[in-house]
Amino acid sequence: MSGSTFGKIFRITTWGESHGSGIGVVIDGCPAGLDLKEKDIQDFLDRRKPGQSKYTTKRNEADSVEILSGVFEGKTTGTPISLLVRNQDQRPRDYGSIATLFRPGHADYPFTVKYGGIRDYRGGGRSSGRETIGRVAAGAVASLMLKEIGITVQAYTKAIGPHYVADEDIHYDQINGNSLYMPNNEVAEKAGEYISSLMADRDSCGGVIECIADGLPVGLGEPVFDKLDALLAQAVVSIGAVKGVEIGDGFAASRSVGSRNNDPFFSENGVVSKKTNHAGGTLGGLSDSSRLILRAAVKPTSSIARTQHTVSVSGENSEITVLGRHDPVIVPRAVVVVESMTAVTLADLLLQNMASSMEHVKKIYR
Amino acid sequence: MSGSTFGKIFRITTWGESHGSGIGVVIDGCPAGLDLKEKDIQDFLDRRKPGQSKYTTKRNEADSVEILSGVFEGKTTGTPISLLVRNQDQRPRDYGSIATLFRPGHADYPFTVKYGGIRDYRGGGRSSGRETIGRVAAGAVASLMLKEIGITVQAYTKAIGPHYVADEDIHYDQINGNSLYMPNNEVAEKAGEYISSLMADRDSCGGVIECIADGLPVGLGEPVFDKLDALLAQAVVSIGAVKGVEIGDGFAASRSVGSRNNDPFFSENGVVSKKTNHAGGTLGGLSDSSRLILRAAVKPTSSIARTQHTVSVSGENSEITVLGRHDPVIVPRAVVVVESMTAVTLADLLLQNMASSMEHVKKIYR
Amino acid sequence: MSGSTFGKIFRITTWGESHGSGIGVVIDGCPAGLDLKEKDIQDFLDRRKPGQSKYTTKRNEADSVEILSGVFEGKTTGTPISLLVRNQDQRPRDYGSIATLFRPGHADYPFTVKYGGIRDYRGGGRSSGRETIGRVAAGAVASLMLKEIGITVQAYTKAIGPHYVADEDIHYDQINGNSLYMPNNEVAEKAGEYISSLMADRDSCGGVIECIADGLPVGLGEPVFDKLDALLAQAVVSIGAVKGVEIGDGFAASRSVGSRNNDPFFSENGVVSKKTNHAGGTLGGLSDSSRLILRAAVKPTSSIARTQHTVSVSGENSEITVLGRHDPVIVPRAVVVVESMTAVTLADLLLQNMASSMEHVKKIYR
Amino acid sequence: MSGSTFGKIFRITTWGESHGSGIGVVIDGCPAGLDLKEKDIQDFLDRRKPGQSKYTTKRNEADSVEILSGVFEGKTTGTPISLLVRNQDQRPRDYGSIATLFRPGHADYPFTVKYGGIRDYRGGGRSSGRETIGRVAAGAVASLMLKEIGITVQAYTKAIGPHYVADEDIHYDQINGNSLYMPNNEVAEKAGEYISSLMADRDSCGGVIECIADGLPVGLGEPVFDKLDALLAQAVVSIGAVKGVEIGDGFAASRSVGSRNNDPFFSENGVVSKKTNHAGGTLGGLSDSSRLILRAAVKPTSSIARTQHTVSVSGENSEITVLGRHDPVIVPRAVVVVESMTAVTLADLLLQNMASSMEHVKKIYR
Repeated sequence: MSGSTFGKIFRITTWGESHGSGIGVVIDGCPAGLDLKEKDIQDFLDRRKPGQSKYTTKRNEADSVEILSGVFEGKTTGTPISLLVRNQDQRPRDYGSIATLFRPGHADYPFTVKYGGIRDYRGGGRSSGRETIGRVAAGAVASLMLKEIGITVQAYTKAIGPHYVADEDIHYDQINGNSLYMPNNEVAEKAGEYISSLMADRDSCGGVIECIADGLPVGLGEPVFDKLDALLAQAVVSIGAVKGVEIGDGFAASRSVGSRNNDPFFSENGVVSKKTNHAGGTLGGLSDSSRLILRAAVKPTSSIARTQHTVSVSGENSEITVLGRHDPVIVPRAVVVVESMTAVTLADLLLQNMASSMEHVKKIYR
Repeated sequence: MSGSTFGKIFRITTWGESHGSGIGVVIDGCPAGLDLKEKDIQDFLDRRKPGQSKYTTKRNEADSVEILSGVFEGKTTGTPISLLVRNQDQRPRDYGSIATLFRPGHADYPFTVKYGGIRDYRGGGRSSGRETIGRVAAGAVASLMLKEIGITVQAYTKAIGPHYVADEDIHYDQINGNSLYMPNNEVAEKAGEYISSLMADRDSCGGVIECIADGLPVGLGEPVFDKLDALLAQAVVSIGAVKGVEIGDGFAASRSVGSRNNDPFFSENGVVSKKTNHAGGTLGGLSDSSRLILRAAVKPTSSIARTQHTVSVSGENSEITVLGRHDPVIVPRAVVVVESMTAVTLADLLLQNMASSMEHVKKIYR
Repeated sequence: MSGSTFGKIFRITTWGESHGSGIGVVIDGCPAGLDLKEKDIQDFLDRRKPGQSKYTTKRNEADSVEILSGVFEGKTTGTPISLLVRNQDQRPRDYGSIATLFRPGHADYPFTVKYGGIRDYRGGGRSSGRETIGRVAAGAVASLMLKEIGITVQAYTKAIGPHYVADEDIHYDQINGNSLYMPNNEVAEKAGEYISSLMADRDSCGGVIECIADGLPVGLGEPVFDKLDALLAQAVVSIGAVKGVEIGDGFAASRSVGSRNNDPFFSENGVVSKKTNHAGGTLGGLSDSSRLILRAAVKPTSSIARTQHTVSVSGENSEITVLGRHDPVIVPRAVVVVESMTAVTLADLLLQNMASSMEHVKKIYR
Repeated sequence: MSGSTFGKIFRITTWGESHGSGIGVVIDGCPAGLDLKEKDIQDFLDRRKPGQSKYTTKRNEADSVEILSGVFEGKTTGTPISLLVRNQDQRPRDYGSIATLFRPGHADYPFTVKYGGIRDYRGGGRSSGRETIGRVAAGAVASLMLKEIGITVQAYTKAIGPHYVADEDIHYDQINGNSLYMPNNEVAEKAGEYISSLMADRDSCGGVIECIADGLPVGLGEPVFDKLDALLAQAVVSIGAVKGVEIGDGFAASRSVGSRNNDPFFSENGVVSKKTNHAGGTLGGLSDSSRLILRAAVKPTSSIARTQHTVSVSGENSEITVLGRHDPVIVPRAVVVVESMTAVTLADLLLQNMASSMEHVKKIYR
């Protein structure tokens, strides 16, 4: 497995399992001189922490972060920043059925085959949602760096199951006004009722997360394979439970026509802008001066308390009932994960773009 | 720009501009001993060649490929395979307005800013659709390698604008029966009429491409950032004009519930399978024994013969009419590009997965 | 800084400063199914631990390693192995002159310029010899993996200052018979006296470390840039204080002639071997069936208790006397570091080589 | 094989075999806006061209380079620069013994094993010295970029067999005054006689190449694995026939003492310098304001016209006489290769270093 590193200059390497000693991330390539305190990171982690509302797992984890390296006297030093979150709520218990049965919708089966029969089955091991702690801790650092040059990133819940917030109904100031992080309290209330009814039915649901970024310099992203939107797609789909991603109008653009979908340019006081933003802030895979907009489709939580058909490790047909503490919908807790992966991707492309022209090279070395 | 390489072991590096000397790709990491002839690659390239139907540009390019290295006596040698396609139809012409005006929907503006004012504006330069020649040439090689171990990849047009082929109406044997590569000749006919009406109106449209892969070993993909679906998302969104991607039920899964979306496992004659395949062939980002299914949303062609508002290189508001030879819809020609990028991604992950367990290591070295 | 990761498949990422919270490494890409206990790693770390003899610093560090992830029930799981060594002996003290003066022979000055004036000066920060803890911990894991398929790696002290062990005087069984890890106790005694005399003179010395590896399969290494010897050169020169590296006869080969330097092949019982081994086990950058042999030149310890001329952070000419606990020669403690970097390089190339031919591919997937 | 790419931002990917269609390189990540003409590259290639003196092979190759992409109106555009050199002198001949016998000192044997028996044996295929054409073409581009910010790189022949130029006898203005590129015409004459005597004896010799670089900004190189000297070591040892590398005093430093080997700093008119330069321009793996100095040990040419013992492809003991056109010493032609690899390494680290501090980041984005 070599897939635990993301990014080329601002590079993050995550590690850790749900019920091991801890979870962490090493951030290599963060520029020196950024103000960084544990609290900056803790604030991000607290947004994904379990136990925040009736819709999240009762698992009780403080998820306290420790900065192990890379920061001296409150500033990053340019050396790797190692962040550690100890696992705490690992009560000894009977993992019996999880150890021997493959849970539908989970990674148990392909992990077992891939790794020659060896698997840390406790709580999903490496494929647990706790894996995202490393992403969020890195996202906090990336966001701080972006903020220094005027870039802001913000994610929120666009839809829970069939309940969605239309573009014209978005109120950014309501995002933190409900436990679902929806930009519309009324829709959030209906969505909450929907979740409650599913919980009563021992079922689960999914939703859509939208993420926007403002203040991007023009030209972020690298043509061809490392386009801004392509790397965001990888970043976001790499989050467990995400089954799709779209930029700007996305799938709706496939049903539009060129005369409507093209965003005309205009110039005002020497600043080039676009009259519309169907593209969602990228042209040819590079940031284009407009707001960056992406959406991620999140599938319903796989762990449900209903009895399901499955197969055992030894290949026998069987039934499984996944007990334990599970979120009926992971969308609200995944909001900060999408925001973090977006920030990490932008931070990396921002640093990559520094070497794009001799003009930039000479600004640094002459 | 460092974004011209894709893959870790099976690595492809593409180069070339629309109106330069040529377009090419270097494939590094293809295992030795694969039978490979120029014709194998040419067949793939012919599928994306212009001038195949009334819906594609009249630009006349032979797009003949030459193998420059890496093949000896009809077999790959394990060294880099360099493939070259010379540009031919570069008639000298007046690039006037393209040189000085930013085309809406195109990469002209952010390219100019990113590269300090320097840009090969002829035909879009590096951001031209011709850039995909390198991808398709590499896809041909990847597909041959996959075939050797029983993996097949197939893409087709799922929708043109509002005209789509429902899952139950798919006839794989009709894909090559119409110039739109749709798996249903009837829908293709209606879609063709739709395109014709847009052409008459000097407008363009988009669509959806679906790609399936069969015969995958279980466990392809690397947990966390290099998940099979995450890398496919990058691969596919990195194709110009793609604005979204989804795996399995994708965005529809976000509106489903867990009890319906989970795919139960069952075992028959010692083989583990899934009763349904809402997941589209991946669990936890690894291949799971079912068919791999993905869909890409393609935006309408940006080049349209209508007059559009825009801005000039010097920052003045202006109007532009994009003349020249353009496809009213690029979906049919992009089918083989999506198939190629899927094949390249699978080839790389297949080789990566060889080192996943000591069991594998010992199979090779003992 | 993006230089904290080494390797492509077996990838190690190290982090940590001399006087921060700890030092560690994340190993990504270790195959699943390798037996691994903390003791295996501790044994390696104990070989580089300070305080082992009168020739090493008195700094007292237990350097106890903790496995934080990637191992379950005594076996690697294929997920990242995170290893942590807490720093313990961080007595608060006066760092005054180190904070404000650049130590000759140390990284202080270029670090300060590179990172915009920010530097963790305590004990050298990231450029401290303690940085090698991560390398050695990773080397222990790599060595275990190599052992599983019959590869052994062994380093030792070839020379201390002018005192060296000629090839014909090497006794491998004496390596652990002296505190300098020399394969000849007599030479070690003279070298020890030499070191003692330098210590009395508040001076320091360097030496040469030799490393051999046996049991390599033929063909490890990737042609052109990632040749076995090229990556070993990077791996070994990346160790602080190493100023040169040579393979086989190395610099002596530059004074030889072809008829003597070429190693003739011969075949015996179907096994191809070389009659001599001037090449040191590589041909064209690939392992060639003979013993791998490399040597690293280690400079004298930079920290000496003599007064030296230098410059202050504010640019004034000044004098410095480096106090504190320093090794008069770091060669003995660096032996295990060279061995570890060699093992890590071999482990990575061993895994890379698995994908070299369709023959291998079919062994895994058919 | 994935070893054909070098560098992280300024990335070069080489391809091609000795007797295939051609040899080439793709340079990805060269900043836009650099003046670049084919002649700039041709001048470098001409320095390694065969047939320049009586000491080089009679093989007659024009080695004319064609720029296929990445340059528009005389300037780099930031997109990949693809360079092609067609092979011309491929006269059909009898490759009989090379095809069936492994040449001592060559890569034939390990290549055959690595790639499952498949090998382009014509002229050494990929492991031919012609492979360095791609390196030199890339080195020309890197050198141009370095020159723009005041960095110069210069290599020359330090020694041919036992004939060497002592530091105090170096005359840089004599380097091009003899066909061996030695900085001392007298030593060059003796060295020439030595080569002639070996040629008469159907034997060959090696030598040492020294390379210096001036004008480096302080701080190039990335701590730990990607140190300036570590990457230079990889770059230089990756050149075929190089068996060792040293920085500054190198192996001699291992016999020195700290009080002599440490280079004291001093400050003059606000500029920090070192009084001596035993370190060869790097401290802690970063450039330190002094001249960069490295040396590469080159083994004697493996192809000699004497009869040697070897083994056939089918494993039988045999004899081989390597006929054809070979250099009795490759050092003079390798001079520009060492210079090129040094330039490429510096160019990459120069671009990497741009992202080292927030100070730099703000210079670009604010």
